[in-house]
Amino acid sequence: MTRYWAEHAWLGGDRAEEGVLIEVEGERIAAVELVPSPDGAHVLRGLTLPGLANAHSHAFHRALRGRTHRGGGTFWTWREDMYAVAERLDPDSYRALARAAFGEMALAGITCVGEFHYLHHGATHYADPNAMGAAVIEAASEAGIRITLLDTCYLAGGFGTLVEGVQERFSDGDADAWAERAAALREAPHARIGAAIHSVRAVPASQLTTVAGWARERGAPLHAHLSEQRAENEACLAAHGRTPAELLDEHGALGARACMVHATHLSDADIGRLGGTAVCMCATTERDLADGIGPARALADAGAPLCTGSDSHAVIDPFEEARAIELDERLRTERRGHFPAAELLRAATNHAAIGWPEAGRIESGAFADLVTVSLDSARLAGAAPETLLESVLFAASPADVREVLVGGRRVVAGGRHAALDVPAELRAAIGAVLPGGAAPAGVEPAATGGVLRR
Amino acid sequence: MTRYWAEHAWLGGDRAEEGVLIEVEGERIAAVELVPSPDGAHVLRGLTLPGLANAHSHAFHRALRGRTHRGGGTFWTWREDMYAVAERLDPDSYRALARAAFGEMALAGITCVGEFHYLHHGATHYADPNAMGAAVIEAASEAGIRITLLDTCYLAGGFGTLVEGVQERFSDGDADAWAERAAALREAPHARIGAAIHSVRAVPASQLTTVAGWARERGAPLHAHLSEQRAENEACLAAHGRTPAELLDEHGALGARACMVHATHLSDADIGRLGGTAVCMCATTERDLADGIGPARALADAGAPLCTGSDSHAVIDPFEEARAIELDERLRTERRGHFPAAELLRAATNHAAIGWPEAGRIESGAFADLVTVSLDSARLAGAAPETLLESVLFAASPADVREVLVGGRRVVAGGRHAALDVPAELRAAIGAVLPGGAAPAGVEPAATGGVLRR
Repeated sequence: MTRYWAEHAWLGGDRAEEGVLIEVEGERIAAVELVPSPDGAHVLRGLTLPGLANAHSHAFHRALRGRTHRGGGTFWTWREDMYAVAERLDPDSYRALARAAFGEMALAGITCVGEFHYLHHGATHYADPNAMGAAVIEAASEAGIRITLLDTCYLAGGFGTLVEGVQERFSDGDADAWAERAAALREAPHARIGAAIHSVRAVPASQLTTVAGWARERGAPLHAHLSEQRAENEACLAAHGRTPAELLDEHGALGARACMVHATHLSDADIGRLGGTAVCMCATTERDLADGIGPARALADAGAPLCTGSDSHAVIDPFEEARAIELDERLRTERRGHFPAAELLRAATNHAAIGWPEAGRIESGAFADLVTVSLDSARLAGAAPETLLESVLFAASPADVREVLVGGRRVVAGGRHAALDVPAELRAAIGAVLPGGAAPAGVEPAATGGVLRR
Repeated sequence: MTRYWAEHAWLGGDRAEEGVLIEVEGERIAAVELVPSPDGAHVLRGLTLPGLANAHSHAFHRALRGRTHRGGGTFWTWREDMYAVAERLDPDSYRALARAAFGEMALAGITCVGEFHYLHHGATHYADPNAMGAAVIEAASEAGIRITLLDTCYLAGGFGTLVEGVQERFSDGDADAWAERAAALREAPHARIGAAIHSVRAVPASQLTTVAGWARERGAPLHAHLSEQRAENEACLAAHGRTPAELLDEHGALGARACMVHATHLSDADIGRLGGTAVCMCATTERDLADGIGPARALADAGAPLCTGSDSHAVIDPFEEARAIELDERLRTERRGHFPAAELLRAATNHAAIGWPEAGRIESGAFADLVTVSLDSARLAGAAPETLLESVLFAASPADVREVLVGGRRVVAGGRHAALDVPAELRAAIGAVLPGGAAPAGVEPAATGGVLRR
């Protein structure tokens, strides 16, 4: 039994509590009690939150940070840069890069990641066809965080188009082969398995039911990229006479265990259809990739539980991710106050959307996943107890994260990762993948052909 | 003579240079030379930039950070919270709060601030009618940064409406009285004086020429809030049959020394009219206050030099401020790549807009104002020399700022302010103004009456 006393802690209400004793037994919280003084307990100075969940990650995109801003372009030209990195990865380099990215997440207060994993194969299949997935699971273990490997079905370059180039490394051929391979993935205490449909572009309609059924049989999460770009909607309407949300719904891919990622360009009917399905907003990536501003408030009002993801890791900043949902809604509507801070914190700690319903809350029986944000920096100095949630949500940065516990184990202490030199790991892992330095040059970009070739 | 050797430095081109010797003589840069090794010079590890300019600040708004997000509301209800803080300030508390806010700016790499200063008087005028302005100038000196006090003319509560409540503390009665008082302000080595028209709401059209003329005679900068809110445009059109930009232009308030702040809601004709006038984007405040997204690219194309400001200090993060110009333009247009990183850095270092043309560049003869951003954090680890400007611009945070020189004097060393305990100053200064803690409660909000009562 370890006793922690949090100066301030968020127990799920609309403001933080002062003086909270949190007793930890093994990997779980045994008791939570309001107590005015630490009385010998280990003091957590600042605001303690439940561990933050990063519900949508492509770990290897971390190598691209800062490298895709030269010139103009769109989501689709950015994707060429991303493919150039994907092309170079093998299980060892993938594991090293993912470990470093997950280490950066731990430093930012993220205790659980939903890794949307589609880089399955080498030029041919590896001897263990799950070598890449296993590498990512191992990377999370080494970084000290939980993971849901959202093993992603990716079969087509677009509606009616075969995969080509590096996309061949994403494909299992058909959904049955995907299902068979994914069924061989092994869970671990820190790792759970979920499914993903990359998108309606990348999984033919005839194969959607197989993936959705695989997840349903296992009670596993089922994720999908949804309507991030208008071009996807147009192509889907042209191919099927249905929006992506309609198409997924018809094939059983929405509902309580499902999570739709982005959901940027939706019709009113789509929004209604997503009630009861989680929606993952990835605001810093959506800004970076010029996706547009999704209808976050309308989705929440329709009954979609929100969660957040750092996705392409343009930055890994769960505070910016959460506040951006509110701030971008303000830009769109020219009104303030769409989301109370507590609602945004619920999104940032939503573990249910990635299949860990027993995490993300500070309460007896929950996993002892805790994040303490220091209030000592110039960013947060002067914050008041009454509005501490707002101060942290709207002004904190990852640099303010001081202590991180995952399953009772200290992963970050005093702002430093307990096991990894994260910056050194990032330098080495990115240098190994992009030895030339700046851009992912030297790899001929595939001829562009727009959305249908994805 | 002090010799610094920057591992990487931005000398104004479209990429950073490697190995730059910067010789400093007194407060100026004496020489800049590419040199492969430090050879005994003091090493600046990371990327060295010219000092960053914060072209639009209301220092006392720092007290409101995190405290204005409860409930919904608009810019106009937020203003009531802001007024409640203004009401409580006197020269001593204003100086302490401004010193703390300027200290936070120094830690973020800001070496020069344009303080848009309108809180001139007490319930009656102080014995020295410039006591408040002098307090702010002194605060900048104590925090170690340069300041342009943009002494602001504020005479009316709206079009055809008198000032009332705390607004009376902003008013000198008429523009002649404003001009007389402002003329008595004293410059100092670290401090210059400029003028500001609060807005077309707050300065009657008949008085605009006096303020513009005052600035013209002195060759001083002239700033104004412009079209931050649609309601201002509507009221101006109703009162004058002209947009705010037209009205200011007709009264000689645009042009080479002028800087328009926000410029969010503009007609195409307004945009054209602003060519040759600086425009200050305050993106983090514009997000916070739900202003909307201004036409930054169109303004720059029309010939408006851009600059940036942290304005209400929802955060003080000049990197987020600069990248937000690009990222919010991406959200608006659904395209990437509107501003090269170097163009955004020119905006973030634009000192000319606040009357310090000899700062903001690393070159012989310029002020020795330098900011070194460490590349050692997880945010920036793995950045490549070829795209260092992009990495820093799109991913750095104030926590990455390690060294700051102002006029050759070290103001920040190893990430710490050389003279002030900034977080402690912030806590004390904000606690003195908002003793009750959270919201600026206890002050009866003035009855709301919309834009015309401002």
